[in-house]
Amino acid sequence: MVVQRRTSRDIRNESRLDVLHTVLSARETTRNEIVRATGLSPATVATVVGELLAQGIVAETKVRPGRSGRPTATLGMNAARGFIIGIDVAETYVRAVLFDTALNQLAFADGDGGERVPDADAVVEGIGRLVDKLLEEQGISRSDVLGVGVSLPGLVQGPSGPSVIVPLWAWQNVETERLRERLALPLAIDNPLKASATAELWLGRGRYRSSLATVNLGTGVGAGIALEGRILRGATNSAGEWGHSLLVLDGRLCRCGRKGCVEAYVGAPGIQQTLRDIDPTHPLAGVDLQGDFIEAVAAAANSDKTDPVIAETIARTAYYLGSALADLVAIVNPEVVTLTGWTTWALSEHLLPATLRHLREQAPGQSGQDVQVTVSAVRGNSAATGIAIIALERFLADAGLLTTNVPIAL
Amino acid sequence: MVVQRRTSRDIRNESRLDVLHTVLSARETTRNEIVRATGLSPATVATVVGELLAQGIVAETKVRPGRSGRPTATLGMNAARGFIIGIDVAETYVRAVLFDTALNQLAFADGDGGERVPDADAVVEGIGRLVDKLLEEQGISRSDVLGVGVSLPGLVQGPSGPSVIVPLWAWQNVETERLRERLALPLAIDNPLKASATAELWLGRGRYRSSLATVNLGTGVGAGIALEGRILRGATNSAGEWGHSLLVLDGRLCRCGRKGCVEAYVGAPGIQQTLRDIDPTHPLAGVDLQGDFIEAVAAAANSDKTDPVIAETIARTAYYLGSALADLVAIVNPEVVTLTGWTTWALSEHLLPATLRHLREQAPGQSGQDVQVTVSAVRGNSAATGIAIIALERFLADAGLLTTNVPIAL
Repeated sequence: MVVQRRTSRDIRNESRLDVLHTVLSARETTRNEIVRATGLSPATVATVVGELLAQGIVAETKVRPGRSGRPTATLGMNAARGFIIGIDVAETYVRAVLFDTALNQLAFADGDGGERVPDADAVVEGIGRLVDKLLEEQGISRSDVLGVGVSLPGLVQGPSGPSVIVPLWAWQNVETERLRERLALPLAIDNPLKASATAELWLGRGRYRSSLATVNLGTGVGAGIALEGRILRGATNSAGEWGHSLLVLDGRLCRCGRKGCVEAYVGAPGIQQTLRDIDPTHPLAGVDLQGDFIEAVAAAANSDKTDPVIAETIARTAYYLGSALADLVAIVNPEVVTLTGWTTWALSEHLLPATLRHLREQAPGQSGQDVQVTVSAVRGNSAATGIAIIALERFLADAGLLTTNVPIAL
Repeated sequence: MVVQRRTSRDIRNESRLDVLHTVLSARETTRNEIVRATGLSPATVATVVGELLAQGIVAETKVRPGRSGRPTATLGMNAARGFIIGIDVAETYVRAVLFDTALNQLAFADGDGGERVPDADAVVEGIGRLVDKLLEEQGISRSDVLGVGVSLPGLVQGPSGPSVIVPLWAWQNVETERLRERLALPLAIDNPLKASATAELWLGRGRYRSSLATVNLGTGVGAGIALEGRILRGATNSAGEWGHSLLVLDGRLCRCGRKGCVEAYVGAPGIQQTLRDIDPTHPLAGVDLQGDFIEAVAAAANSDKTDPVIAETIARTAYYLGSALADLVAIVNPEVVTLTGWTTWALSEHLLPATLRHLREQAPGQSGQDVQVTVSAVRGNSAATGIAIIALERFLADAGLLTTNVPIAL
């Protein structure tokens, strides 16, 4: 058996993760509350809290009188421990978000970008400048940054060494090394699917449900899958490429080079193609930038005047999306599916009811009825937040506090 | 976090599973060899072997001189501990297989069945008679049977109580209870996908790879998925319903009532439909029984004379199967896909090369290149073997030796 053995080290690891999750979501808590929330023994909680206090990850925030009259220390994440930067490199924008160790969002900066990013070298340099700018503006020294996470829109493969495949920029390992040199900061790289699912696990529905899929709808589409509280990475870290599973055999050409992928129908350019299929002369058929197109569709759908072409575009997109989600549910059978990404923010109100209906009709057995589908409660840019959490996990792993299933070379 | 906590109980559980797997696959081994094979400490192996000896699951087979001159006891599964029956209730046949505790196949019996099984009551009674017959023929007392596993061709759902959905016979919980009474033996029920994947984990590629999908090709098709050595069950035990994921949006009507499912193209009746699409006048277009049809296709493909309709049927089926497998690989990214089921036994030689080519073309990134696809090495009826293993797991769980993720009510 090559099965990963669970060791007492893993148990300590999970105890630490549970305590961290509890402290993080409670903002302010006590050892007794952690015992109740996690089900761990008081002795284990005392030990783990002691370790986290020693590393400065958790801090005693104040002392309040306990029930027994003895003072009780309240605990919180030690926001002052240092900074973490999460960078969402999307195909249509680059955003860097600065967090403290408590995952409070402190500031952000947007890079150039736009929808016509030149090449991998320019992306590396753009990320570098963005980090410089953010640190300078906020007056933060590099030595106070615990880590930088960069989410890249492609396959980030492991575990036989990092291999990042970003079709758009022909990003190779050499660019990863160049980025590491340019930033001169601890670096974690993963893709937005794994990042968003990590954010969902730490800050969203994952706090209540351990088996979930986080579906990202933007230029690209994909799913981050978490099972029993861990991100499903697969043999080579490419699990979750639902966006490039088939919706229509021999269907629309996808920009990945194959035909009929989910993304070719529910990615933002796919939605525009659906509108063009319905009415090539519609004013929105020629909108140049994807972000503008999706916003315009949302505006039209929100308007009092019904535009039948927009209504039909949304109806077909819901059919495509519901059918594709039914496939994900058929194969993985998660408790919850959360939707995220900028198309979700703009259109979910209009898309969701019909999407749910189609999903329930098409998922096998009871699985469509049983699955909960909601818009993600993770606010802000979940890819940036999630990749910052992955960078924090790496920092904690380097400090010997956590093990992580992020491929080690990434 | 509702995440299942890993406890020291789980670790003992995994140590016992690892030792059991090692003893089972080695047939004859020693404590030292188990230490080497599992990576467990000699003390842990000694403890676990002691527990398994005490329960009579493992036996000392003989004593041979050790290297140090001290005698070394060899260990094997204690075949004499009792019997396990695995029953594969398929839509075209029913087969009961008798195993000893070492999972040696001792005998089998086939039920009526054929392709027109009447109803759930008849199935219950058929299973009951088959077990009676098998025990009688072999002269085995009911008290020597450790458990019976029944694999039913439908969704077996949990964990909120057992709910078996077999579309063909409208099987309900009441039939499960009736079967339990009729057999008067410890009963485990699951579906053939979970059963075949369990067999693969214990006896097939799972001995070397912990992340795999076992794809069953027969009347129905589906995938049993194992991740990190455990069967992926999903929120309601319906993970792996890949056979009812979409291959063609709005495609062929599937007997599940939806359109375009994978099963409608690569299930045996789907393959016959493909042949009819190519040439409705072909002699095999009208073959009545699925088993006969698949055998006739295999015979034609094996013949020296090329039949272009058969060749085209196989080529299209390989295209459908490769495309559908690419979806499974895209979402789950397993290390290995094994193929099983009677269509596999009959046609894999002809199907596999082109299926692999299509899979590699269509899976995202490197995932198609990285995945190994092979015919399952589990011999015989893998659903019967797997469901017998699940019954053995339940027996060991009842004896306090294993925990199992089989929904407890099943």
